[in-house]
Amino acid sequence: MAKLWGGRFSGDTDPLMDAFNASIDVDIRLWEADIRGSIAYARALHRAGILTAEERDRLILGLERIWGEFAEGSFRLEPGDEDIHTAVERRLHELAGPLAGKLHTGRSRNDQVVTDTRLYLLDRMEVLADALNSLQEAIVRVAEEHLDVIMPGYTHLQRAQPLRFSHWLMSYFWAFQRDWERLDDLWRRVDIMPLGSAALAGTAIPIDRKALAADLGFADISPNSVDAVSDRDFILEFLAWAALLGTHISRLAEDLIIWSTAEFGFVTVAEAYSTGSSLMPQKRNPDALELLRAKAGRLQGNFTRLATTVKGLPSTYNKDLQEDKEPLFDTVDTLEMALPILERVIRTLQLHPERMREAITPDMLATDLAYYLVDKGVPFREAHHLVGRVVRRAEELGVSIDALPLDAFQAISPHFGPDVYRVFDPEQAVERRRVPGGTAREAVLDQIARAKRLLHAE
Amino acid sequence: MAKLWGGRFSGDTDPLMDAFNASIDVDIRLWEADIRGSIAYARALHRAGILTAEERDRLILGLERIWGEFAEGSFRLEPGDEDIHTAVERRLHELAGPLAGKLHTGRSRNDQVVTDTRLYLLDRMEVLADALNSLQEAIVRVAEEHLDVIMPGYTHLQRAQPLRFSHWLMSYFWAFQRDWERLDDLWRRVDIMPLGSAALAGTAIPIDRKALAADLGFADISPNSVDAVSDRDFILEFLAWAALLGTHISRLAEDLIIWSTAEFGFVTVAEAYSTGSSLMPQKRNPDALELLRAKAGRLQGNFTRLATTVKGLPSTYNKDLQEDKEPLFDTVDTLEMALPILERVIRTLQLHPERMREAITPDMLATDLAYYLVDKGVPFREAHHLVGRVVRRAEELGVSIDALPLDAFQAISPHFGPDVYRVFDPEQAVERRRVPGGTAREAVLDQIARAKRLLHAE
Amino acid sequence: MAKLWGGRFSGDTDPLMDAFNASIDVDIRLWEADIRGSIAYARALHRAGILTAEERDRLILGLERIWGEFAEGSFRLEPGDEDIHTAVERRLHELAGPLAGKLHTGRSRNDQVVTDTRLYLLDRMEVLADALNSLQEAIVRVAEEHLDVIMPGYTHLQRAQPLRFSHWLMSYFWAFQRDWERLDDLWRRVDIMPLGSAALAGTAIPIDRKALAADLGFADISPNSVDAVSDRDFILEFLAWAALLGTHISRLAEDLIIWSTAEFGFVTVAEAYSTGSSLMPQKRNPDALELLRAKAGRLQGNFTRLATTVKGLPSTYNKDLQEDKEPLFDTVDTLEMALPILERVIRTLQLHPERMREAITPDMLATDLAYYLVDKGVPFREAHHLVGRVVRRAEELGVSIDALPLDAFQAISPHFGPDVYRVFDPEQAVERRRVPGGTAREAVLDQIARAKRLLHAE
Amino acid sequence: MAKLWGGRFSGDTDPLMDAFNASIDVDIRLWEADIRGSIAYARALHRAGILTAEERDRLILGLERIWGEFAEGSFRLEPGDEDIHTAVERRLHELAGPLAGKLHTGRSRNDQVVTDTRLYLLDRMEVLADALNSLQEAIVRVAEEHLDVIMPGYTHLQRAQPLRFSHWLMSYFWAFQRDWERLDDLWRRVDIMPLGSAALAGTAIPIDRKALAADLGFADISPNSVDAVSDRDFILEFLAWAALLGTHISRLAEDLIIWSTAEFGFVTVAEAYSTGSSLMPQKRNPDALELLRAKAGRLQGNFTRLATTVKGLPSTYNKDLQEDKEPLFDTVDTLEMALPILERVIRTLQLHPERMREAITPDMLATDLAYYLVDKGVPFREAHHLVGRVVRRAEELGVSIDALPLDAFQAISPHFGPDVYRVFDPEQAVERRRVPGGTAREAVLDQIARAKRLLHAE
Repeated sequence: MAKLWGGRFSGDTDPLMDAFNASIDVDIRLWEADIRGSIAYARALHRAGILTAEERDRLILGLERIWGEFAEGSFRLEPGDEDIHTAVERRLHELAGPLAGKLHTGRSRNDQVVTDTRLYLLDRMEVLADALNSLQEAIVRVAEEHLDVIMPGYTHLQRAQPLRFSHWLMSYFWAFQRDWERLDDLWRRVDIMPLGSAALAGTAIPIDRKALAADLGFADISPNSVDAVSDRDFILEFLAWAALLGTHISRLAEDLIIWSTAEFGFVTVAEAYSTGSSLMPQKRNPDALELLRAKAGRLQGNFTRLATTVKGLPSTYNKDLQEDKEPLFDTVDTLEMALPILERVIRTLQLHPERMREAITPDMLATDLAYYLVDKGVPFREAHHLVGRVVRRAEELGVSIDALPLDAFQAISPHFGPDVYRVFDPEQAVERRRVPGGTAREAVLDQIARAKRLLHAE
Repeated sequence: MAKLWGGRFSGDTDPLMDAFNASIDVDIRLWEADIRGSIAYARALHRAGILTAEERDRLILGLERIWGEFAEGSFRLEPGDEDIHTAVERRLHELAGPLAGKLHTGRSRNDQVVTDTRLYLLDRMEVLADALNSLQEAIVRVAEEHLDVIMPGYTHLQRAQPLRFSHWLMSYFWAFQRDWERLDDLWRRVDIMPLGSAALAGTAIPIDRKALAADLGFADISPNSVDAVSDRDFILEFLAWAALLGTHISRLAEDLIIWSTAEFGFVTVAEAYSTGSSLMPQKRNPDALELLRAKAGRLQGNFTRLATTVKGLPSTYNKDLQEDKEPLFDTVDTLEMALPILERVIRTLQLHPERMREAITPDMLATDLAYYLVDKGVPFREAHHLVGRVVRRAEELGVSIDALPLDAFQAISPHFGPDVYRVFDPEQAVERRRVPGGTAREAVLDQIARAKRLLHAE
Repeated sequence: MAKLWGGRFSGDTDPLMDAFNASIDVDIRLWEADIRGSIAYARALHRAGILTAEERDRLILGLERIWGEFAEGSFRLEPGDEDIHTAVERRLHELAGPLAGKLHTGRSRNDQVVTDTRLYLLDRMEVLADALNSLQEAIVRVAEEHLDVIMPGYTHLQRAQPLRFSHWLMSYFWAFQRDWERLDDLWRRVDIMPLGSAALAGTAIPIDRKALAADLGFADISPNSVDAVSDRDFILEFLAWAALLGTHISRLAEDLIIWSTAEFGFVTVAEAYSTGSSLMPQKRNPDALELLRAKAGRLQGNFTRLATTVKGLPSTYNKDLQEDKEPLFDTVDTLEMALPILERVIRTLQLHPERMREAITPDMLATDLAYYLVDKGVPFREAHHLVGRVVRRAEELGVSIDALPLDAFQAISPHFGPDVYRVFDPEQAVERRRVPGGTAREAVLDQIARAKRLLHAE
Repeated sequence: MAKLWGGRFSGDTDPLMDAFNASIDVDIRLWEADIRGSIAYARALHRAGILTAEERDRLILGLERIWGEFAEGSFRLEPGDEDIHTAVERRLHELAGPLAGKLHTGRSRNDQVVTDTRLYLLDRMEVLADALNSLQEAIVRVAEEHLDVIMPGYTHLQRAQPLRFSHWLMSYFWAFQRDWERLDDLWRRVDIMPLGSAALAGTAIPIDRKALAADLGFADISPNSVDAVSDRDFILEFLAWAALLGTHISRLAEDLIIWSTAEFGFVTVAEAYSTGSSLMPQKRNPDALELLRAKAGRLQGNFTRLATTVKGLPSTYNKDLQEDKEPLFDTVDTLEMALPILERVIRTLQLHPERMREAITPDMLATDLAYYLVDKGVPFREAHHLVGRVVRRAEELGVSIDALPLDAFQAISPHFGPDVYRVFDPEQAVERRRVPGGTAREAVLDQIARAKRLLHAE
């Protein structure tokens, strides 16, 4: 079959150029959206008086048959099928004859492709929102289960202060919650129908765009036809969203990779998400986590790719925009795999609370020692300085700070009394942080309750 | 003065390391936010029973004096001032003595710096929202003014169909409107107070975080202390927002640069936003637009920079996060300059409607010629093909399609009648696109009215 | 078949995890390199006394048979084939029995995969070097053919000074020449064999690494086993190389897209590299060039992707490195298509010298007018200023500067004489730029001669 | 003073536009290169007959005086000084009168700025090459010093096989060596003089470009004037080089950050490169390393920034190119600080060999156990599988594999004999890897010797 646009052309194209130009390998994945869009468009053309009821029905019948062929895997691509729109139209022509030629009335591939892409993305965003929710549920569940596990908290990867494991884990709940909210915000900007914009100036056919949007389930119609065919913001915003989500995944993965080293030994990743070595029989590698960490680069690369492509592009449709789909599809695929994997890694994670507890050394209570002095009226900055001296003194004597004799304490500050040794109980330190957002039991329980309410609402 | 954290350290640091580590050159810009935060924190410490009313007042008096010093430019940095927090605390110590040491009670630079940054960003976001609004207003105004200017619309930078200039210009209104909405969405995620999270585990002091947030004007408090000190999402999201806005600016600039070439000659950029050449006396270069186009790279680079930095970072605070401020500040500065420049370029843009009109050639009405056939009952795809042959025939005869004799038309399709020549009126073609979002006068007026309502509401 | 590394594992993995972990869909493309590597390795194991001559030959026979299966498309993947190495080893086991198990002696997938990747890349770099060369040859040829075509040169997209078309075109020759040289430099850093590094510490088997490298055609062996399995610099450098090349392609495409607008009309892209519109029958869009311009984003995205992934990665092999292959393969594929397309677009480009000539307006000779004054002893900066006044005066009178009456010239400077009108010959202006690298005929011919010598040498 | 290019302009520019357009805050750093370039250019103009010897000397005298003013810090910027070229020319005019106006004869800011930038970069590349060399020397020295320290080698951050610390450290020597070689390759592409290209078409003045290049110390002249003013490849390649170097720095930093945790405890960063906490008195944070890790993002961002900016730019000079200097300068500054800091961190790094040795557990010898079986004739893959069973058996019995009784070994394979226990000596395992590039003492010494030869040669 001749190309859709071949009329004015005399010569042939170069087969290499056909391959370079074709997008069918990539955009075939839009088949469902494309057919849905065409069925609704046939109805709109009928309403606009372009198609009779009988013509409309014949076209829809043909389109439904093509839908069936795709669904059952029997649709056959032909050499001329340069993109999904062409493929469907070519097949419809085979099924419905010249009548198929009426379906394109007042429609351009410029508005068609971006309508398809929006329909597709709305579908996938639902799937991703669910996957994010399941991940958050897993986090809440594991956090509840291990509420009383206390571990060292780190800053700069140096032991800092004792922390509930659940408190650490819940910190990712909130990061993912922001991702959820951002996705929700983005929804409104994807849920807009560009169809009826035609090539760039708006269709010359009196299509009822609002009715067409309602038919396709879109919340709104695009307000400007030039913008409608130019704009790939909804994809870029999705890719930026994914890049940000990717950083969260990578950080959580990094924490768990470090904690599953022999040296930390705080957690063990389930065998199902680990692999061995082809050379070293003893190895158990946290491959799932490493791949999750790596995906951040991929997701960021996808954003860079499209953002650079649209930079400085003249307005309306340029063929450059054809390059929008691969980063979009790759990002969708990556996350549809990564989110459930992460969820499962967390659900099956084995904790080693005793290793965590052993790693809480008395010097992690140094801040609490400073508060001990503050309670006795020493300004905090001075208390901090005095405790610094306690730490050095203990180092000089080669003992841990809770083993420093009282006179050593008192040589540094007379405010130290025999009750100083009570400071060195990690449990108490944790419970002292009972402000909202703190690591005390009550505060973490409040946090979990709030999280559950949010999950319930979503 | 000794370093804030120097207590346990015996040796000296390397001066090169001091320079490498210091952030004061960059974060000094947070002085106002830092002092505001400290004043509110002094009040919170009083409420928590850590400071007497008199101590609180003395600290506030000192902080206000420091505020004054910064405001009038008399604040003097000292060698040890490694960051803005240290500088303010050092100076407060000079003014208020050891009492200054109490202000840091239960607060860490980890929660302090992120609180400062959020306060700063909220301020700048207001400025940017205003700048965006002014730009949108300029667009609407210029669009209204030139409502009846018709120009060639392009796809692939090839002449496509006639378009109202206003319709083209308004297409950017909607892109910027999305930016405005995204900024509004982002606001909720910036407007959250991390203070009270301390180093990572939550403060051990019974600070009333909600009252403190209210005092500082924050809408909410952070729900998890680990997340609060780890999270730079609000900056990343802002940088991604700016990168997207940057692509819009670059595309608008590209359109205008091309249109202000001698060859297009559709617009002239006002002299105030052009420059000449040091070698070629006749030149008038659209420098403002070129710089605006270029900024997209800068804004995208800033996003890449921070996204790469946080990738794979262990949770809580790591010093790597100190690198968040330069891309943030640079992005703010870039946009605070670029948006008003763009606004002014648009307000002062000189149009050449006659050049635009001359550029509308009859072949741009080819789609309308196809619709002429559709109206006579020819399926669109066939009509499209027949018009393709008309175009070729005219090329062969070396005439424009509106000069093709009737018999030449009829040799291609008997549906062509003498009324075919009426198709070649660009005004009519424009008016035919009267669907919502189309380029017809009425549709553009509706668009402008909707835009004004939105601007009014913001 | 059980996993290569399954010995110590008791449980099963999750099928989703198998899919997430598997790389076979991607790395199957390394089959040829993998088998070549294994054949050479079998010989090395024989030399090391691990295999008898007969065992070596049986393994090679098996490997050659697998090679044949891949080459003829009959190789069948099995469910457990998680990567290309596993697939080949599994099949070898079927063909050669337990003997196959000896091939992995002293080898790890860590050194195997990076050896395969280097072999693959060396192959593709040769293809790309040839493609680059052909493109450069096309440029030289077209430049020679149109040596006497004079066009307006632009800066800031504003008409600046007359230029030979060939001179403009040759400017890209040199950009691609730098790409060629960079590829040549990169070669040395790819042409290094990591095999023998085993998992990370070097193989415990007395493999003669230099002989093995010679067998595989590598110029050198890696000097440090830890670096050898960690390092993906050769891929990153290749991706950065491609990103830079991509910017050249995008700029050349942009020039030609602008010049093929109706308004410029300097060139026409051959039909074979253009496409039409599904809606607008008159359209002829430079799709090939738009896609070429867009690829810059893709290539840059691929660099970002891997650079972000390796950022902050602990040394030696981490599973994150598995993500290196997709950006590599995509970059190779993109360029293996883009370079020949660009070459063909250039070879078939139709020029419109008369349109170019018409676009050379007298004001483009303003710099030459300044030199006229310089020749009369006026300092250049003053001459530049005076000519600026000439330009303005002509604008005021509404004439072009070459139509300004002599007294108007002389009112601005007494140095202007009747010979001033001779300045306004573009040909002469072009010929005045005869320094090396200038646009005069002789200088361009020298340039072309030098280019040919370089191409000849490569 | 009026703008250099003001002649034809009637109106004023907008002060905001002046600020937006000006680059003087950034490019003032080019003062030295700019003046050097102008002095050489004055000599070239004399050779070309444009300046008398006396004029040349007066200009040079003036330029030298300006040089002195910059050097001693007394140069004063004036409001109209939009860039460094304008500032120098304005000042020269003050000193030398109208004669100053002759210096610009046949030169444009387009070729001048890129000449300055190349001169600047060549200077900085020398400094960076030295810094890289010093870092490499430090690595070699520390590697030699600790040759006999054996530590666990990791893959996937899981204990893998014993390794010499020096072998690990030397792995970075080779990464930095590649950076050195890349910098050396880049040198040739920076060391090219664009001066004489004028605005875009080549200068109309008969400048002897080769003599001018020799005077400025450039190795070659640019072959095409259009390319010369368009091309920013040398900056982009430098930025890509730096981004790659940044990944090496980030990986080395990550290794050391993890190893300086309390849990690993393999190294301690010197106090001079650590900092404490404002809240937690016991903390000693490896800030220098964290900042070094973070810089990878910054360096990558700088590349993205410029690559995106030049993407799709029309050829010759566009104002967009003014944005090249900030990423360049920022990258230079970052590395001129980061490389010496890293060098010093390494030189002062404290090792804890006993902690490293303790972390070498018997299961890290599992590969060697497999080789034990290979030596007895078991094919490697089977041996690997049998050792996997040994590992599991030991886990079941709750003992380490070297404590497994002989009968347990023999129950798994009859090839195990009483000599099996000799396998579990890490020193022997290390010494077994004596292939070139392996971790055996001899192999590491060879590596160090080769490294020293390279450093000597550079």
